[in-house]
Amino acid sequence: MYDGIVQELIDELGRLPGVGPKSAQRIAFHILQTPSFDVSRLSHLLSEVRERVKFCDRCGNVSEAELCSICRDTRRDQALICVVEDAKDVSAIERTREFRGLYHVLGGAISPISGVGPDDLRVQQLMTRLADDTVQEVILATNPNLEGEATAAYLSRLLTSMDITITRLASGLPVGGDLEYADEITLGRAFEGRRSA
Amino acid sequence: MYDGIVQELIDELGRLPGVGPKSAQRIAFHILQTPSFDVSRLSHLLSEVRERVKFCDRCGNVSEAELCSICRDTRRDQALICVVEDAKDVSAIERTREFRGLYHVLGGAISPISGVGPDDLRVQQLMTRLADDTVQEVILATNPNLEGEATAAYLSRLLTSMDITITRLASGLPVGGDLEYADEITLGRAFEGRRSA
Repeated sequence: MYDGIVQELIDELGRLPGVGPKSAQRIAFHILQTPSFDVSRLSHLLSEVRERVKFCDRCGNVSEAELCSICRDTRRDQALICVVEDAKDVSAIERTREFRGLYHVLGGAISPISGVGPDDLRVQQLMTRLADDTVQEVILATNPNLEGEATAAYLSRLLTSMDITITRLASGLPVGGDLEYADEITLGRAFEGRRSA
Repeated sequence: MYDGIVQELIDELGRLPGVGPKSAQRIAFHILQTPSFDVSRLSHLLSEVRERVKFCDRCGNVSEAELCSICRDTRRDQALICVVEDAKDVSAIERTREFRGLYHVLGGAISPISGVGPDDLRVQQLMTRLADDTVQEVILATNPNLEGEATAAYLSRLLTSMDITITRLASGLPVGGDLEYADEITLGRAFEGRRSA
């Protein structure tokens, strides 16, 4: 609909996750009206990130070096590994400032429907990390949904023979949430996991 | 929250219209997992579009040349100008294939609240285009909202002394819409503008 290159940009932007044709058009027009300097900054960052950022050899988190900043940080508790599905989860947990151990990013969750099995995840790498007896506790922080639960159950079974404490994040009512609007499963979990007040 | 450059990209993406911090993060991670070739294509297109695409000297539509492809097309009706707020509106109208005249992009609408007056829009350029008596009809296709109506009213008053037919796009029920769910103002307009069946 637009002169060549503008339409090309709209098409390309529309391939990004969460960007529909309308947003792609809005972004393209925004670009046209943005100072040239800012646009080249974004354009440069895109290729730079793609070139420079890799995944941590040990935990699978995003990293500019062979090991990510968390794996390199010797002050972090080396005896504690939190297993997550995705590098985005690492950032979410880091924001809580509650966790001082290391991470292991699986790169997804077991999902027979999408054809993702344990061999498609970084499970073998986790086993290797656990082999030297440094780690005392593995926290399974996969998502509280079908695939995440299946993955946690699989890992829990796999690790059961090792002398390691396996834990799972608590499920329950979201803080600030409204009991009335909680779905039954969440509410059920909240009862199951109730603590003495 | 992320190692330097990834966070920089997330921040930069978060400045785009309609992209919140969560989407910016999703897009950044998508970029990390996209083939290098596709990322450089996007990165290249961004700077190319910014460098090459300008606005048409005559109508204000996006264009890679001094005049846009519509203004250059001599088969289009030179006696008919459709006035729109934004270059995005040109594309919306072109998709209908109903209109074969030329456009004039105002670059916004009159909005006292946002401090946009007639002098901030391409009104003077419109007057210049109308001076040589080629144009016989001006269609005011500003948005059917407060600012758009004010802009249309202003232009209508301004052009009234010239020997030009001034028209406004019809307001009414959207095709495929449901009468029951139409707001009162739209429904009122549909009655006002009723035609013999």
